[in-house]
Amino acid sequence: MEAKWWRKVAFDIVSAFEETVMPLFGSPEAGKLVGRGPSGDETKLVDRVAEDIILGYLGELGVNVVTEETGVLNEGSDYTVIVDPLDGSYNFISGIPFFAVSMAVFEKEGPIYAFIYEPIVERFYEGIPGRGAYLNGRRIRVRKFDGKASISFYTRERGGELIRRVKRTRTLGAIALELAYLASGRLDAVVDVRRYVRPTDVAAGIIIAREAGALVRDAEGRELKISFSATDRIDIVAVNSEELLKIILEALR
Amino acid sequence: MEAKWWRKVAFDIVSAFEETVMPLFGSPEAGKLVGRGPSGDETKLVDRVAEDIILGYLGELGVNVVTEETGVLNEGSDYTVIVDPLDGSYNFISGIPFFAVSMAVFEKEGPIYAFIYEPIVERFYEGIPGRGAYLNGRRIRVRKFDGKASISFYTRERGGELIRRVKRTRTLGAIALELAYLASGRLDAVVDVRRYVRPTDVAAGIIIAREAGALVRDAEGRELKISFSATDRIDIVAVNSEELLKIILEALR
Repeated sequence: MEAKWWRKVAFDIVSAFEETVMPLFGSPEAGKLVGRGPSGDETKLVDRVAEDIILGYLGELGVNVVTEETGVLNEGSDYTVIVDPLDGSYNFISGIPFFAVSMAVFEKEGPIYAFIYEPIVERFYEGIPGRGAYLNGRRIRVRKFDGKASISFYTRERGGELIRRVKRTRTLGAIALELAYLASGRLDAVVDVRRYVRPTDVAAGIIIAREAGALVRDAEGRELKISFSATDRIDIVAVNSEELLKIILEALR
Repeated sequence: MEAKWWRKVAFDIVSAFEETVMPLFGSPEAGKLVGRGPSGDETKLVDRVAEDIILGYLGELGVNVVTEETGVLNEGSDYTVIVDPLDGSYNFISGIPFFAVSMAVFEKEGPIYAFIYEPIVERFYEGIPGRGAYLNGRRIRVRKFDGKASISFYTRERGGELIRRVKRTRTLGAIALELAYLASGRLDAVVDVRRYVRPTDVAAGIIIAREAGALVRDAEGRELKISFSATDRIDIVAVNSEELLKIILEALR
């Protein structure tokens, strides 16, 4: 099963999302509490609805699946799919137009395909390891760093100084999508040092950003590995250049 | 000239924005540098285009106008219009779907009408002093604070501790729109303590948020006054409740 085959799965998921999930955008019903995920986070109605439709598709394929709400489903397959049915739940429920669906596919340990879909503007981002990153079928690259950094930044305390070292910061509340923005030259970096983000949040974004030329590290500058876990909490520093990486790591020290 | 009359002006401006400005969304051309405004900020092509069409409309009315790029145009009228033709220029230019048009109207010193338009999701927010705040014609109110604050927060250093006192923060990069989000119950507060924001950025948002029940103060908790200036730099703390105001002012102390 190669990239082209997985793109078909992605299109099916996107269609189902548009049909079943999008009508809930901004509705109070979407935010009803319906349970808790394996890492203790609240599960809202829309998270459940989005996950059910996606697990419905993936269940038929007999692959291993890792999601935020359900955890790890090990089917003994060579393929593992890490999926976030709704990145940016708070935004979605509150009617803030910034959220996405994201999915990363691995054959054994190696990534082979990833997509992120941004419904509000119908942008479909893909990463195909070794073959590049794409936005609606057109090749994308990180932008050249010009010394004036516009970064997405999540912190509780650590590295607050970074805010004064860059031109502007954003905290948009949907990190997969922010990584897609890094990949397509809308942001220069995505930094989250809250020990809060899970592999399900960033797996697809990491693959797409790397294929677009980004460097993706942990908060100490080490190459970031994607684990098949629904509960790990990690830090991430993803940037478009060595120069900006150095500035950020210094501020975090 | 009362609210109903100004709503007609607003509709004309929105139509012109959709026709002339929206085609530039996310295009590199939109970001071309074309000059500097009275407060020294760079003027980008799209700022110029948006301002030209709006000044075209307002110029015919013979009213005083305050804008970011051009400054104060005093026509000796009883009416003063503070307008931000494009709130969130960086987002617009970068293809981040979060920006707005905003306008506030005063008769002598008193506010009489304000609107904020969010093109991406076609939301038209209005504030009519004494008569309430509206979203696409339906009454809106700030939401009841439930102890878990989701706030928009802009700082360089001051009050960094606030991040640990609230449930979640956002930095969306279009403060007029974030004030409209406060007014419509999508956020609990909007806080900017960078001494960066100008009256043109927040005048309409303040009127709409107040009409929706928000408290709008400076960083010391004093009632915030809107000045007819294109160059003043102010701090703003806008919240949905006394309880949250107290938490925020304590963190800023």
